[in-house]
Amino acid sequence: MVITLLTDFGLGDTYVGQMKGAILAVAPSVTLVDLTHAVPAQDVHAGTFLLWSAVEAFAAGTIHVVVVDPGVGSARRAVAIRARRGDVFIGPDNGLLWPAVERLGGLAQAIELSEPRFWRHNPSSTFHGRDLFGPNAGHLANGVPLDQLGRPIDDPQKLEFPKPRGLDGEVIHVDTYGNLITNLPAASLPEHFEVRLGAHRISRATHYAAVAEGGLLALIGSSGLLEISARNASAAAITGARRGNSVLVEQR
Amino acid sequence: MVITLLTDFGLGDTYVGQMKGAILAVAPSVTLVDLTHAVPAQDVHAGTFLLWSAVEAFAAGTIHVVVVDPGVGSARRAVAIRARRGDVFIGPDNGLLWPAVERLGGLAQAIELSEPRFWRHNPSSTFHGRDLFGPNAGHLANGVPLDQLGRPIDDPQKLEFPKPRGLDGEVIHVDTYGNLITNLPAASLPEHFEVRLGAHRISRATHYAAVAEGGLLALIGSSGLLEISARNASAAAITGARRGNSVLVEQR
Amino acid sequence: MVITLLTDFGLGDTYVGQMKGAILAVAPSVTLVDLTHAVPAQDVHAGTFLLWSAVEAFAAGTIHVVVVDPGVGSARRAVAIRARRGDVFIGPDNGLLWPAVERLGGLAQAIELSEPRFWRHNPSSTFHGRDLFGPNAGHLANGVPLDQLGRPIDDPQKLEFPKPRGLDGEVIHVDTYGNLITNLPAASLPEHFEVRLGAHRISRATHYAAVAEGGLLALIGSSGLLEISARNASAAAITGARRGNSVLVEQR
Repeated sequence: MVITLLTDFGLGDTYVGQMKGAILAVAPSVTLVDLTHAVPAQDVHAGTFLLWSAVEAFAAGTIHVVVVDPGVGSARRAVAIRARRGDVFIGPDNGLLWPAVERLGGLAQAIELSEPRFWRHNPSSTFHGRDLFGPNAGHLANGVPLDQLGRPIDDPQKLEFPKPRGLDGEVIHVDTYGNLITNLPAASLPEHFEVRLGAHRISRATHYAAVAEGGLLALIGSSGLLEISARNASAAAITGARRGNSVLVEQR
Repeated sequence: MVITLLTDFGLGDTYVGQMKGAILAVAPSVTLVDLTHAVPAQDVHAGTFLLWSAVEAFAAGTIHVVVVDPGVGSARRAVAIRARRGDVFIGPDNGLLWPAVERLGGLAQAIELSEPRFWRHNPSSTFHGRDLFGPNAGHLANGVPLDQLGRPIDDPQKLEFPKPRGLDGEVIHVDTYGNLITNLPAASLPEHFEVRLGAHRISRATHYAAVAEGGLLALIGSSGLLEISARNASAAAITGARRGNSVLVEQR
Repeated sequence: MVITLLTDFGLGDTYVGQMKGAILAVAPSVTLVDLTHAVPAQDVHAGTFLLWSAVEAFAAGTIHVVVVDPGVGSARRAVAIRARRGDVFIGPDNGLLWPAVERLGGLAQAIELSEPRFWRHNPSSTFHGRDLFGPNAGHLANGVPLDQLGRPIDDPQKLEFPKPRGLDGEVIHVDTYGNLITNLPAASLPEHFEVRLGAHRISRATHYAAVAEGGLLALIGSSGLLEISARNASAAAITGARRGNSVLVEQR
C-alpha cells in the first residue's frame, strides 16, 4: 500500500520524518512517497494545485496525507475523503483536498476523524500530521474500514481553482522551471490559437524544441492544462508573470 | 526494519543516495526514512536538537544512522549505542547522539565499530557514512548482534542541551516556520505564566488560533518544550531572536 | 529491486512524486531511492558527474532512471543501457549516462525504448520521466527482458569528462560543502605532490584533521578523484574556484 505525503513542513526540520515514523509505527510495511513538502507555509491555495497535479499518476486506491494546516488546534475538523476512483485523502478540513477529489471522480464518502483510538497517544495541539492524520492513514492502510475512523459528514470544505471565462484564463501555478501553468484545460482550446500574456504574443507549439533557445511557447502541459514555457529558460523570468496574472487565448 | 538517516550532506549532491545504496547493498529489504539532511555543515549542536526531536515518533527498535562528522578520518571513534527503549544509534562519537539516547531511556549498551568485516571494501577516509556507518546499520538490520560489530566501550561522548536555571531558559532551535523552541520542558512550567523575550511580553495560549493573525504566543510545542510562535507568521522574524537568546518565564 | 532517480525536477513541485507514482503503479514493490533532484535545470554536464558519483555504491543490477532532458518532445531517442556490471540506465539519449556506464564496466546492451505498450497511456510531450522512462523502469523491475522494451542500438550518445593532460587537470564539480572535485584519478598521481590552484599552493593530506581549522588540503576524495578541501570550511569560498578552473599537480 502506498501512502503519499504533501505538506508545508519543509525539509529543514524533522517534522516530515516524525510523521513518517508515526505512520510506520502503525503500518510498518507501507511504501511512503513524498509529493512535496515545499508548499509555502500555510498557503492552502498553493497546496491545492500541487496536490491536484500529482494524484492521477498514482494507482487507484492510494492514500494521500495532506497537511497544510493554518487552523491546527482550533475547531477545524480533521477529515478523510474517499474519491470515486478509490483513493483516500486525509487532512484538515480546509478545502485543499477538493480539486484532487474531483479529479479522481468526485466524492464517494467523507468522514470526520473523530475516533481517538486511531490517534497517537497524548496528541499535541500543534502537530496533527504526526499525531492524528498520519496514524489514521496507517490504520486505513492496515485494513481498518474508512467508516470506522469517525462519523460520516456530507459537507467537506471545498476550494476551487479560479474558473476561466471562456478563453480568458489566468496563471494558477509557477513551477520550478518557471513554466506558467494556467487554468485553461486542453479541451477548452480552439485548434489554432495564440496567447496574450501582458505585452507578449505567444504561439502554440507541441514541444520545446519547436522554438529557438530562450523562445516563449504555449503548449498543453503534462497535467492537461495550457502552459506558457520557454525553451531551456524560465517563462516566469522572461515575462515577469506570477500566479493570478491574466492569460488570453485568441483563436486564429 | 526501519533505518533513519540524519546528516549534514544536503540534497544537492548524491551523498545521501550513496549512503542509501551502501545500506541497501547489505540489507535490501529495509525501509529508509530521512529525518533531515539539512543540518548546517559540521554543526554538531544543531544536529543534536534535530535528532532528539525526531526519535520518539518511531517504533521502539528503530536504527538511526547519524552523520555530522567534522572529525572524519581522524582518530575519533565510530560508535553504536543502544538505548533502553531498544533503538540503536550509529555515528561518529562526538556526543550528538546522547540527548536522543537519554530521551529513549538512557544507555543500554555502547560499542566501538571496530570490525572491518562489517565495513564497505576499501573504505575512504572522508565518507564514513557510506563506507562504515551505513553498512554497519545494514548488518544490524540483518540480525547481526550489536556486540559483534566491535568492542564494548563505557565512555561515549555526551553533548547536552544548555540547562535552564529554574524558569530562565533559552532558545535552542529555530524551526522552518520561525518557531522558537526553548530548553524549558512543559513539566517545569507554572500553571499560569507569561514569557519575556527581549522587549516582548508573550502570553500563554493552547493553540495558534487563540491569538490574532500575526500575534505572538507561548505554547507547549509538539516535542514537549516551551515554544514561542506567531499565528501564521514567523516568531523569529517578528522578534529577531536566534539560538542562544534568553527566554524568561514569569509566574502570574 | 532498487530503482534510483536522478533528475533536474527540484523538490518544489510534484514532478518527482508523479514519476514515483507512475513507477509504483507498474511495480508496487520496488524500493525507490533519490540520488538527487537538484541538477541545475537542463544542465546535462552537471548531471553527468552526479550520476557517475553515485552508482558504484549500489548493488550490481540496480535500475537507474535519469531525466535531465532539454530535448524532451523532440526527435531525441529514449534509451536503456545495460552496463557490464548488470545495472540498467534509463533516460533520454543525450550522453549523460555514459561515464556511469563506463564506471560499471562499459556497455553490455543498448535499446531504444520504442514500445508504446510499456509507456503510460496518453503520454505527454513534456514529461517523459512520468510517462515513458518511469513505466519502462517498472516493467524492467517486474522482469520484462530489456530487449523487449524496444529495438537494439549500437550508437548511444556519449558525454565524457574533460581529460586531464598528465598532471594538468581541472575542477569538474563543486559539492555542497565547497569541496572542489577534479578530474585527476588517484592512480594518476605521484606519491608526493603539491597542488596549485590559482595563487594557492596546497599540500597533500590524508584527512581533514591533518590541517588547521579552515586550512586547505588536497586529498583523494570518496569517489577516487583528487579533491581540494578545507577543514570545516568551504574550499570554493576560500579560493573562489569554480567548475572548469585549472588544477596543477606538481611532484615533490
